[in-house]
Amino acid sequence: MSCIMIINGPNLNLLGKREPEIYGTTTLAEIEQACQEIADKNQVTLEFLQSNHEGVIIDWIHEARDRCDALLINPGAFTHTSVAIRDALSAFNGPKVECHLSNVHAREEFRHHSYISPVVDSIIIGAGWRGYTMGLNYLMDSLADAK
Amino acid sequence: MSCIMIINGPNLNLLGKREPEIYGTTTLAEIEQACQEIADKNQVTLEFLQSNHEGVIIDWIHEARDRCDALLINPGAFTHTSVAIRDALSAFNGPKVECHLSNVHAREEFRHHSYISPVVDSIIIGAGWRGYTMGLNYLMDSLADAK
Amino acid sequence: MSCIMIINGPNLNLLGKREPEIYGTTTLAEIEQACQEIADKNQVTLEFLQSNHEGVIIDWIHEARDRCDALLINPGAFTHTSVAIRDALSAFNGPKVECHLSNVHAREEFRHHSYISPVVDSIIIGAGWRGYTMGLNYLMDSLADAK
Amino acid sequence: MSCIMIINGPNLNLLGKREPEIYGTTTLAEIEQACQEIADKNQVTLEFLQSNHEGVIIDWIHEARDRCDALLINPGAFTHTSVAIRDALSAFNGPKVECHLSNVHAREEFRHHSYISPVVDSIIIGAGWRGYTMGLNYLMDSLADAK
Amino acid sequence: MSCIMIINGPNLNLLGKREPEIYGTTTLAEIEQACQEIADKNQVTLEFLQSNHEGVIIDWIHEARDRCDALLINPGAFTHTSVAIRDALSAFNGPKVECHLSNVHAREEFRHHSYISPVVDSIIIGAGWRGYTMGLNYLMDSLADAK
Amino acid sequence: MSCIMIINGPNLNLLGKREPEIYGTTTLAEIEQACQEIADKNQVTLEFLQSNHEGVIIDWIHEARDRCDALLINPGAFTHTSVAIRDALSAFNGPKVECHLSNVHAREEFRHHSYISPVVDSIIIGAGWRGYTMGLNYLMDSLADAK
Amino acid sequence: MSCIMIINGPNLNLLGKREPEIYGTTTLAEIEQACQEIADKNQVTLEFLQSNHEGVIIDWIHEARDRCDALLINPGAFTHTSVAIRDALSAFNGPKVECHLSNVHAREEFRHHSYISPVVDSIIIGAGWRGYTMGLNYLMDSLADAK
Amino acid sequence: MSCIMIINGPNLNLLGKREPEIYGTTTLAEIEQACQEIADKNQVTLEFLQSNHEGVIIDWIHEARDRCDALLINPGAFTHTSVAIRDALSAFNGPKVECHLSNVHAREEFRHHSYISPVVDSIIIGAGWRGYTMGLNYLMDSLADAK
Amino acid sequence: MSCIMIINGPNLNLLGKREPEIYGTTTLAEIEQACQEIADKNQVTLEFLQSNHEGVIIDWIHEARDRCDALLINPGAFTHTSVAIRDALSAFNGPKVECHLSNVHAREEFRHHSYISPVVDSIIIGAGWRGYTMGLNYLMDSLADAK
Amino acid sequence: MSCIMIINGPNLNLLGKREPEIYGTTTLAEIEQACQEIADKNQVTLEFLQSNHEGVIIDWIHEARDRCDALLINPGAFTHTSVAIRDALSAFNGPKVECHLSNVHAREEFRHHSYISPVVDSIIIGAGWRGYTMGLNYLMDSLADAK
Amino acid sequence: MSCIMIINGPNLNLLGKREPEIYGTTTLAEIEQACQEIADKNQVTLEFLQSNHEGVIIDWIHEARDRCDALLINPGAFTHTSVAIRDALSAFNGPKVECHLSNVHAREEFRHHSYISPVVDSIIIGAGWRGYTMGLNYLMDSLADAK
Amino acid sequence: MSCIMIINGPNLNLLGKREPEIYGTTTLAEIEQACQEIADKNQVTLEFLQSNHEGVIIDWIHEARDRCDALLINPGAFTHTSVAIRDALSAFNGPKVECHLSNVHAREEFRHHSYISPVVDSIIIGAGWRGYTMGLNYLMDSLADAK
Repeated sequence: MSCIMIINGPNLNLLGKREPEIYGTTTLAEIEQACQEIADKNQVTLEFLQSNHEGVIIDWIHEARDRCDALLINPGAFTHTSVAIRDALSAFNGPKVECHLSNVHAREEFRHHSYISPVVDSIIIGAGWRGYTMGLNYLMDSLADAK
Repeated sequence: MSCIMIINGPNLNLLGKREPEIYGTTTLAEIEQACQEIADKNQVTLEFLQSNHEGVIIDWIHEARDRCDALLINPGAFTHTSVAIRDALSAFNGPKVECHLSNVHAREEFRHHSYISPVVDSIIIGAGWRGYTMGLNYLMDSLADAK
Repeated sequence: MSCIMIINGPNLNLLGKREPEIYGTTTLAEIEQACQEIADKNQVTLEFLQSNHEGVIIDWIHEARDRCDALLINPGAFTHTSVAIRDALSAFNGPKVECHLSNVHAREEFRHHSYISPVVDSIIIGAGWRGYTMGLNYLMDSLADAK
Repeated sequence: MSCIMIINGPNLNLLGKREPEIYGTTTLAEIEQACQEIADKNQVTLEFLQSNHEGVIIDWIHEARDRCDALLINPGAFTHTSVAIRDALSAFNGPKVECHLSNVHAREEFRHHSYISPVVDSIIIGAGWRGYTMGLNYLMDSLADAK
Repeated sequence: MSCIMIINGPNLNLLGKREPEIYGTTTLAEIEQACQEIADKNQVTLEFLQSNHEGVIIDWIHEARDRCDALLINPGAFTHTSVAIRDALSAFNGPKVECHLSNVHAREEFRHHSYISPVVDSIIIGAGWRGYTMGLNYLMDSLADAK
Repeated sequence: MSCIMIINGPNLNLLGKREPEIYGTTTLAEIEQACQEIADKNQVTLEFLQSNHEGVIIDWIHEARDRCDALLINPGAFTHTSVAIRDALSAFNGPKVECHLSNVHAREEFRHHSYISPVVDSIIIGAGWRGYTMGLNYLMDSLADAK
Repeated sequence: MSCIMIINGPNLNLLGKREPEIYGTTTLAEIEQACQEIADKNQVTLEFLQSNHEGVIIDWIHEARDRCDALLINPGAFTHTSVAIRDALSAFNGPKVECHLSNVHAREEFRHHSYISPVVDSIIIGAGWRGYTMGLNYLMDSLADAK
Repeated sequence: MSCIMIINGPNLNLLGKREPEIYGTTTLAEIEQACQEIADKNQVTLEFLQSNHEGVIIDWIHEARDRCDALLINPGAFTHTSVAIRDALSAFNGPKVECHLSNVHAREEFRHHSYISPVVDSIIIGAGWRGYTMGLNYLMDSLADAK
Repeated sequence: MSCIMIINGPNLNLLGKREPEIYGTTTLAEIEQACQEIADKNQVTLEFLQSNHEGVIIDWIHEARDRCDALLINPGAFTHTSVAIRDALSAFNGPKVECHLSNVHAREEFRHHSYISPVVDSIIIGAGWRGYTMGLNYLMDSLADAK
Repeated sequence: MSCIMIINGPNLNLLGKREPEIYGTTTLAEIEQACQEIADKNQVTLEFLQSNHEGVIIDWIHEARDRCDALLINPGAFTHTSVAIRDALSAFNGPKVECHLSNVHAREEFRHHSYISPVVDSIIIGAGWRGYTMGLNYLMDSLADAK
Repeated sequence: MSCIMIINGPNLNLLGKREPEIYGTTTLAEIEQACQEIADKNQVTLEFLQSNHEGVIIDWIHEARDRCDALLINPGAFTHTSVAIRDALSAFNGPKVECHLSNVHAREEFRHHSYISPVVDSIIIGAGWRGYTMGLNYLMDSLADAK
Repeated sequence: MSCIMIINGPNLNLLGKREPEIYGTTTLAEIEQACQEIADKNQVTLEFLQSNHEGVIIDWIHEARDRCDALLINPGAFTHTSVAIRDALSAFNGPKVECHLSNVHAREEFRHHSYISPVVDSIIIGAGWRGYTMGLNYLMDSLADAK
């Protein structure tokens, strides 16, 4: 049975409460539930995590090396500033998706650059909560392909 | 019955034949077929087009204003150089997806900037041919949401 | 009897229908009519053209070398990306005007640079449809001066 | 009866005498006369001013708030350096035209950027002394439109 | 009774001991005391916090959403590197002050840019420990204004 | 008895009348009155000045060398363009405050850079009219410290 | 019998008539003749083409994949703006030469950068019409080497 | 008896397991052992630490102020992003070495800049695990020099 | 009898009093006297002027067109910001020297660029008050050469 | 009888031995021989030189002024760093060719800029040893043209 | 018996006499002696060289290809300007160390970039004369490893 | 008796023969003679040198440390590229002048930056051969001042 880790970066715990005109009204719990349903249907174990601490996220990615087969990350603001998370992701060998709820390219200039993108397989931007389920399905398909 | 237009930019007619280590071995005809199957299942009309001519692509986007409800575009190399396609897309009001087969952020510096991204809703990068079906599903969901 | 060519670049066929808060509600046909009236009054032949194809516009500028005495161009999005149109204009010897409906300097950064401006005589920006008639009058005055 | 202020920036008092290969041989007095004739014909009061002092120009723009309906400015060298004149213009509510005698985009790089352009309605470049009369006519038309 | 949170970023625990020629000899405890006296006099609850951990600071800002009415932050070195703290501050709705003990604009180039400044109301730089009391007074005045 | 000079740069005479959504509705006269009350209470002589002329402001700063003990300046648009005012301030030895009514860092890019900041002691941004009274109090405290 | 395609980009149809001080007085027909003579002597089939349309040029390069063994391109203004032609050239496997009549490095800054150069084998600049025959000879030698 | 602290930044716990073509096959435990042997031979206390948390590393550097005489740091990815660690190091007065296992200057552009280098005494790059023992020896020599 | 104008820009009236470690202890009056003695010896009329007002300096340069044969300018801070003074100098036809007391290239980055240098004949930097007499002698020699 | 000088810059003495995957296996002596054969056939004197010393190369170019009619230079690494060689070449009046064995535009960014290109007539890049014979033929043709 | 070449770049002959606050008081002869002692102890032949001539240094590196097994270079000022030395080093196959006496990253901006670093194995900065002995030991260890 | 060294950089041996529209028709021998006459009159020993070799120039500056009291250098093209000459000049303690015959600021962009200027006392630009005699006089005055 495959395991997929989904990591959410800083401030995503506020989802649905914070700046809904940018991030929508769906909460992180609702996204988790949507993902869990898909995982259940496909008999995949899901680890759905959130932290505002860069170090914690790095630790989780390291743990995923032993425990998980694929990884979806919405690095939030760390997208633009964290070389350390990039390096941790480089050391994870399974398929990887980077996901952003809002269209970062329609926002401030500094949100257009991602340290993460060059080391993942696929990037999904601006699809709202559906970006997570699209990414999850993509990862399960990739794992199936690799078998 | 909804209509979705899928536009492919320059050199995508060579898909499967050209630089397969970057673009994969799936041909454009195979991608069209995969999309058509999904469209049929969802009773959506599909227009699947390719051109190496920027002007032809602009003309198609203009036609889509009258005839289609949503639009997926893989602008290929025009992503990085065409303000004219960007402006045409701005004038199309339905949901819009930008799609790239390869992970452009892991390639040359000049492929990291897109004139198109700020005017579409969602962007899918590096998911290979699945990017098209993911985008198509996203567009059908968006149209359903809007009803 | 003098001949003046007026060339309109990509997306200008949508004028009046597309983003009226930026481009106004006047259609291209109405602008043509306003220009034609002035041309008639001054016994000048007018060629009023529009294309979304860069190559077609270059061909027209080449034709103007044989057939026309002056040239007004609203290059639309090609303003910012087309060295080829610039070079074609360099090879046209009569008076030349570049015209933009909206104030491009009050919009996105990439619209502030024009490849066209250094090779024309005069540039009229942000005067809406009146920019065309102002430019046309300027060209007729320039032709009269040159006699 | 409407009032239109025309402001000329530094060194424009030398017009006709200084670098005629760039600025032409028409003097500022001749331009004033051409404008005055148009103003008289249209029953518009004209204030035609020139100063080499940035502060004086700012004071005049402030006065125009009380006394004039529209404003044409050839900011000369201040175009490229004066945020203060830009801010003064922002605080003037009537239609505004920026005018340059020579084609600044065919000259030194530092003349390609204008602090003024984003806060005016229309910009006329490289049309020589006719730029003033074109701008004046445009302002009178704009005032008529607004009625 | 209002609550104001004051957050101190990395290395500020060393205040008074570290590089006193830059940061002065006042300790963080002394600044807290000065603030507490003002808070007491104005019957305001004060939370005075310091951490070297970006994640902890983000957590505190999230908590402030429920518990506090205004916020003063000296983000220290995170000023120049943390988009995540910026985003957390964007999600806090009360009045916000950014405060720096030293004049960051008279120091290294990289200290001149702040990710924080665009999302706070007011910024106080180089006023030493008095910057905190000035900021605190400003926040109390802002809260009073808003009533 | 100490003397403090407060200098206001270009367009600040329009305060309360110009773009109130940016600069608020308080007039410069009201700010002067608020400052004067504080000065009176503290037995400090106040010189409260405004000019749209860079040269006049430089002359005043030179005069302050003989007549005043501290200086607060809101350089307005000259903040971003005047090396000459910076040099004049460098030659004034008492405590110096730079003050901006609006949050310049939340506005256009070119307003983010200040030639003035590196040569003053303290900078107060975005606190509206209260920035003046905060700055005035800071200067009086600094003068008291120095005794 | 080998086939070599020679493609000429925008405005090169005007050769000999346009700006002869830059491009010389030789016409494109004369260059074609000089190339044809060499090709005949070496029993090589030549396709000598010119278009002002980027899309047409891309189509030709695609056709060359099936029909030709080597390729010489003078991309004209598209040198500096066309990623699409670059990508088409990348997909052509035979030897490739880029050729410019004038010394582009002695002209405007924007003519110094070529999107094409990194994907061709050899580049010949500033040798006038002889650049074509030099390039043609080089390609025939390369084909001979490869046998 | 002197004390030297050796701090390892993010992802270095994976050493020997992650991307061995870049970082080699030596584990962090093996490096620690090599350092410990040298320390033992020289009767120096060694603290050998690793964390993926920037805040933890800052805390350790603060502790080193009280407890250690010299400091070697391999900041890993924080080299390029952490002003906070730089500031903490500035506040440590003993000799300091920055060490990188791989030659960062032969890798991605963003790895060429270090926030740390300007505030340490010596930098050792690309010497693999030997960089640690070289740095340790250098620190012991520096401490001996200072006596 | 020749006339030479010497113009001093902002803050130079403070010479000898302001930042003597940068500008030396010689006053402007002493420099004027040194220049006057040379002028007297050579039977040249000298106009020695200083202003903190850019507009005044421009007016003087205009007057010099009618009255003087050569011009020496120490533009002070206007060196780096005034296109208007540059343009005024361009319109003066006699020999022109730019002079700076201190070595501006050994100071802040923004002092390394001069708008003035490209339009004068000769530039003398860092020679202190002797730069004026050197420049004056050079101008007299140039006038003699031209006869 | 004409004389042509061929100058080879630093490290070209290692040709054939150094990095053959970039520079090929042909030695400099073999290139000299190929050139000498062509020169002999055309009754041209050849001077074929190599030095690792910039100054020696400059001296040779100066000597060529007296002794040679045309010049081919492969400046090697000096291409990107030597303004002095550029200036020496500017002072040589005959036809000049710059030649690079490898395609410098497909290599590191710093190899894309040449100080030499703007002052030569023609540039040949990436044609391997044939670049020399192509360049030599071009120079002999140019000399013939000039007669 | 191994041979190691140590090359010192321009101005290093002045070591101990020139700017001792930057470079220390140790002379180059003393460094050579320290290195020679280590070499003797390890039965390694040492060539210790210094030149102010870039070409001489390139020649030495070429000679090292035949005669030496490893190479340490302190390129001095050539670090920042010499692509030619970089290319020579690329052609040397043994282990290579770049060494700088002072911490170049704590000095002028232009000293932060090295053309040399990407082509050596290891870089030692700011360790004073000990950098040489550290580098020498590292090279001997590397040679031992390779056996 | 004082000694002053005058060093001329690359290509200055061609003076009077090369590009006289830029550098004038005076030869280097004539400049030497003009300097020698002044030196004789002032009983100063003159060393007047020229080389196209950077290393030779560095050697001369080193020799000047022992033998000369002041130094004038026209570094020619090395101005813009030689950090090594800059460092040599830094190690010379007497007064230093940098001199350029032509106005480098009115020429190509890359000639506007000097590595030399920040480490000399005075810079004289564009004064032709008189720049040498002005500089020589300045150095003799500086030596007299220092006594």
